[in-house]
Amino acid sequence: MSRARAAIILAAGQGTRMKSELPKVLHPVGGRAMLDWAIAAAAKIGATRTIVVTGAHAPAVGEHVAKALGPNASVIQDPPLGTAHAVRAAETAMAGFDGDVIILYGDAPFVPPARLEDMFTLRTEKNGIVVLAFEARDPTGYGRVVRNADGTLERIVEHKDASEAERANTLCNSGVLCADAKTLFGLLAKVKNENAKREYYLTDIPAIGRAEGVQTQVLIGEESDAMGVNSKVELAAAEAAFQQRARIGAMEAGVTLIDPATVFFSYDTEIAPDVVIEPNIFFGPGVKIAKGALIHAFCHFERTEVGENAAIGPFARFRPGSKLGKKVKIGNFVEVKNSVFGEGAKASHLAYIGDADVGPRANLGAGTIVCNYDGFDKYRTTIGADAFIGSDTALVSPVTIGDRAYTGTGSVITKDVPAGALGVARSRQVNLEGWADKNREKKLKAKAEKDKRE
Amino acid sequence: MSRARAAIILAAGQGTRMKSELPKVLHPVGGRAMLDWAIAAAAKIGATRTIVVTGAHAPAVGEHVAKALGPNASVIQDPPLGTAHAVRAAETAMAGFDGDVIILYGDAPFVPPARLEDMFTLRTEKNGIVVLAFEARDPTGYGRVVRNADGTLERIVEHKDASEAERANTLCNSGVLCADAKTLFGLLAKVKNENAKREYYLTDIPAIGRAEGVQTQVLIGEESDAMGVNSKVELAAAEAAFQQRARIGAMEAGVTLIDPATVFFSYDTEIAPDVVIEPNIFFGPGVKIAKGALIHAFCHFERTEVGENAAIGPFARFRPGSKLGKKVKIGNFVEVKNSVFGEGAKASHLAYIGDADVGPRANLGAGTIVCNYDGFDKYRTTIGADAFIGSDTALVSPVTIGDRAYTGTGSVITKDVPAGALGVARSRQVNLEGWADKNREKKLKAKAEKDKRE
Amino acid sequence: MSRARAAIILAAGQGTRMKSELPKVLHPVGGRAMLDWAIAAAAKIGATRTIVVTGAHAPAVGEHVAKALGPNASVIQDPPLGTAHAVRAAETAMAGFDGDVIILYGDAPFVPPARLEDMFTLRTEKNGIVVLAFEARDPTGYGRVVRNADGTLERIVEHKDASEAERANTLCNSGVLCADAKTLFGLLAKVKNENAKREYYLTDIPAIGRAEGVQTQVLIGEESDAMGVNSKVELAAAEAAFQQRARIGAMEAGVTLIDPATVFFSYDTEIAPDVVIEPNIFFGPGVKIAKGALIHAFCHFERTEVGENAAIGPFARFRPGSKLGKKVKIGNFVEVKNSVFGEGAKASHLAYIGDADVGPRANLGAGTIVCNYDGFDKYRTTIGADAFIGSDTALVSPVTIGDRAYTGTGSVITKDVPAGALGVARSRQVNLEGWADKNREKKLKAKAEKDKRE
Repeated sequence: MSRARAAIILAAGQGTRMKSELPKVLHPVGGRAMLDWAIAAAAKIGATRTIVVTGAHAPAVGEHVAKALGPNASVIQDPPLGTAHAVRAAETAMAGFDGDVIILYGDAPFVPPARLEDMFTLRTEKNGIVVLAFEARDPTGYGRVVRNADGTLERIVEHKDASEAERANTLCNSGVLCADAKTLFGLLAKVKNENAKREYYLTDIPAIGRAEGVQTQVLIGEESDAMGVNSKVELAAAEAAFQQRARIGAMEAGVTLIDPATVFFSYDTEIAPDVVIEPNIFFGPGVKIAKGALIHAFCHFERTEVGENAAIGPFARFRPGSKLGKKVKIGNFVEVKNSVFGEGAKASHLAYIGDADVGPRANLGAGTIVCNYDGFDKYRTTIGADAFIGSDTALVSPVTIGDRAYTGTGSVITKDVPAGALGVARSRQVNLEGWADKNREKKLKAKAEKDKRE
Repeated sequence: MSRARAAIILAAGQGTRMKSELPKVLHPVGGRAMLDWAIAAAAKIGATRTIVVTGAHAPAVGEHVAKALGPNASVIQDPPLGTAHAVRAAETAMAGFDGDVIILYGDAPFVPPARLEDMFTLRTEKNGIVVLAFEARDPTGYGRVVRNADGTLERIVEHKDASEAERANTLCNSGVLCADAKTLFGLLAKVKNENAKREYYLTDIPAIGRAEGVQTQVLIGEESDAMGVNSKVELAAAEAAFQQRARIGAMEAGVTLIDPATVFFSYDTEIAPDVVIEPNIFFGPGVKIAKGALIHAFCHFERTEVGENAAIGPFARFRPGSKLGKKVKIGNFVEVKNSVFGEGAKASHLAYIGDADVGPRANLGAGTIVCNYDGFDKYRTTIGADAFIGSDTALVSPVTIGDRAYTGTGSVITKDVPAGALGVARSRQVNLEGWADKNREKKLKAKAEKDKRE
Repeated sequence: MSRARAAIILAAGQGTRMKSELPKVLHPVGGRAMLDWAIAAAAKIGATRTIVVTGAHAPAVGEHVAKALGPNASVIQDPPLGTAHAVRAAETAMAGFDGDVIILYGDAPFVPPARLEDMFTLRTEKNGIVVLAFEARDPTGYGRVVRNADGTLERIVEHKDASEAERANTLCNSGVLCADAKTLFGLLAKVKNENAKREYYLTDIPAIGRAEGVQTQVLIGEESDAMGVNSKVELAAAEAAFQQRARIGAMEAGVTLIDPATVFFSYDTEIAPDVVIEPNIFFGPGVKIAKGALIHAFCHFERTEVGENAAIGPFARFRPGSKLGKKVKIGNFVEVKNSVFGEGAKASHLAYIGDADVGPRANLGAGTIVCNYDGFDKYRTTIGADAFIGSDTALVSPVTIGDRAYTGTGSVITKDVPAGALGVARSRQVNLEGWADKNREKKLKAKAEKDKRE
């Protein structure tokens, strides 16, 4: 049986270059906080314990972790004295854990879980430590991975301490490290801070381990594994890298993207094959689109499911909690919020459908508004199967429109309409002959007089 | 006089990598099915007969061809036994044709017609066959074009059969081939299937022809001529190539595109000089924009004509059948469908104008809805010159608003309004003093009590 | 004290390659006419006199200058006889000016003012002239800057007159030139038109000056300094360069851009740190967004201020003159024009708010329309603090809704509603039992009969 696994996620950095009051690791990429990418990776590789090391300056990170992983999953590193010191801050929280620990980063959380699996595979009795390295196009600034003849790690040299020859080496340290827990904490206790910044560096442990007979193995991944975020420009670059992967992935799965570069995915977007997506679509978290749906340009989705062969947009907006059945049509300038549409139901133009249950084949006319809020409370409205809501109808929730019922154009419906009935609230039209002509004459005359006076 | 021309379009491929129920050749690029690009190219070069070879697995392709070219324009290749076999499937349908045949591809239909013309020009008595070749940046996978000292074709070597030296040759076969019909079918009958896949390859005919004294000439085009589509990723690449050409073409003709990369053209989009186009515009098929028009950001057009100096958007949506006169203004969150607007007419905000004729200078207020559908039938409405439709008016079609007539704000208009009259349907306003304050008090009290109970 | 400064902006080119009736220099980049970029640069470097040289073919340029700089700020060069001739056209208008003159270009106005400052710094007693040069990636077409051993300028050689060796020189002339006014006009008088086009070239004056003991110094800037616009394609490239700078600048200042490439800035857009901006946003001129605001996708802004922690969009449109307080919420399909929203006020869906003052915490329901125009005049409406405008309310301006007042759903409000009152204008709902079922029966029967007849 494989060994137990745990993850320690370092998330204590100040992130001052982000120029933000939001702690760096809580900035989202693909609709999910960077820290949550690391937490999800830990879950994916089956970590039975995940500890997040936070900074004293950012209590919001601890609160975020408490919601995601429970109250004991974060520890505070205070003051911040380097990466080795940060990992040691998690030692108490790791008490009693026997197995392998992987060190991840809240601001560089994009290592594919499959790569982490490869690291665990390399973590054998012989290899007490495994580090993830990558070939950098431009290695400036990265620590270099110096290997022995057998490919194992000799040591990691920081860029600023590297000789000219060592700098020519483009194999760099990602920071991601896997080690037997006991070995890890044993070595960490021996790391010294004899350097310019008086900090304790995690990168020192392979060399210390080597002196003690602990061998460090190197896994070479991709440069993108180590992509980190220290500024808004780098955040945008990480987002772009995520989107690029998501777009290619969708197309390879059979989704048609007319212009991939203009479709924005979230980490959990699910789109079935043979969905056609026009340009300029924004998928917030929690969106599923079923087979055969057509998504016209300029739509915005959050936490919504779209059924098979539905036709959506252009200019449709879906707020959380919406679920559209098969062949539903939602057209332009329509907002749907927390509503369910039965098969074949339609709201083709200019409508707000909030907190409503819409029956199959119901047709909601242009200008339909479900008035779900009275300034104090929210209510739910039900529209029956095959109902026809006349244009410009306001449905004052809570109200029920029966199956096959009609509402008259321009009506404010405050009482239930029985099945098969017509509900109408309307004034009779009166034509005032000549009014508009006289009004025009009066207005133009007034204008002429005003012009004369001025 | 020039010789008669015909085209055979190979469109029988399975296209399984597309992961789609829609046959590959029916996927659109620039708003037109790829197959229709090939059919249009054939028409452009004056083909008097165009035969499409389809596969037994995709009857939709045959139906599509029947609509485009008539019932006898497609033949079925069943089973699929290679490209030579596919061309032979068209032989009966070509009976009686005397002239040059060009072989085109339903999944690689972007050869410019001018290039095809060049091939016909090369197709002389001396050159029984002409093939289109191109220099590939990366020739991997392509058949290589081996030429004689005089530049004529010696043979085509498939990549997998090519020697190391032959693979270094980057001159590749596009597959597009032009030949005298009689020569073509004569040689096709001699192609053998002595290869791993037991298929009959069109690429064998130059070598067979050579043995019989038929010379094959080579036209060297651009790599983009041969751009083919086998997956959704390649479909997006073909779309991007089309859009890039269309955008540059528009700008060179004097159209101002603030951000060209965000404007989507269809194959037949016509935009006059001095039109200014803000970012994020989608032109579906059938759109013409006249000189001096200003298109604000975020608009979506299908089969619509926009007149000179019109001002459109942002956030306007045009469905098929719309025609806007000079200086028409259509503003934000307005949908226009199958409607005609006279010179200077306006619908500036939040409106649905469907199946309507709007006179010159008429002003349709915010919230105007033309109720063209009663759940069973659609009707047409007429709005006269200089009419003023008050905000939030619903016009229940069919209805006629006379010239210079007004409608009162919030009216549902079900009867015609004479010229110069005011049509109004409205309840008198009543103010209930203190109602809102008392209501608030009651609501807050109820809330407090509820909180107490919980 | 530093010497007086003046600017002469050459803006007389025909710009025929733009294929536009709008003179080339009036085409905007980043929401501002190119000419205005040059005028702004002149103002930035403290020019006390700015003269724009215009062509006789484009009186609109002179009118534009008159509005920006006053009636005497433009001169006409007629006929156009070269750049030296153009500068001489400004000589009379420069009469009495004693100091340094900088020559700028209306179609290449993107030199950073800091670079111009560096030119003035170099313009010492020893250096009568300073030219701005740049290293070109592809120098084809540019005049080459030939320097003496001491780095000063020997002469400028036009591309077509350059030898093979001179063409290998990639240091090119930007055209921007700074000189003592007296020296400048003195040398200009000596320029000859002994060339193919019989024109007088500004590039000749360094060589003429050298013969007279006037030393020309060279400042080497960036290639982007010289970016010029002669076609719509180049206009788009200039726009892209501006946008790229603006996007990077915003992110470096702490703005979060989820997809920078889809956010469009104007020259004067001001966005505070910690604003989060989803994809596809268009900022026209005059927009300020305060700290903490969240801008959802697909919004369009012109001359609008957004307060702290406001939540905007998606699909919101702001026209000039709007000002939103803190925590204001403007949701989807809402147009705001020339209106002020107090702290915490909301218009969440489908509304047109034009010429209105909205009090703090007021809630405008879905479908609210402020009818600010009666076909002849525009009026202003006031909505009090904590007011609740029911869905589908039309407020016929001018009208005042008191603090805490309500309006009933679907009402047309034409009279003021007192504070704390309910204003309502509504017909009573009537249900006609069985009407819809009977109607359906009738319609279906009619359809069946019609089908039978046909």
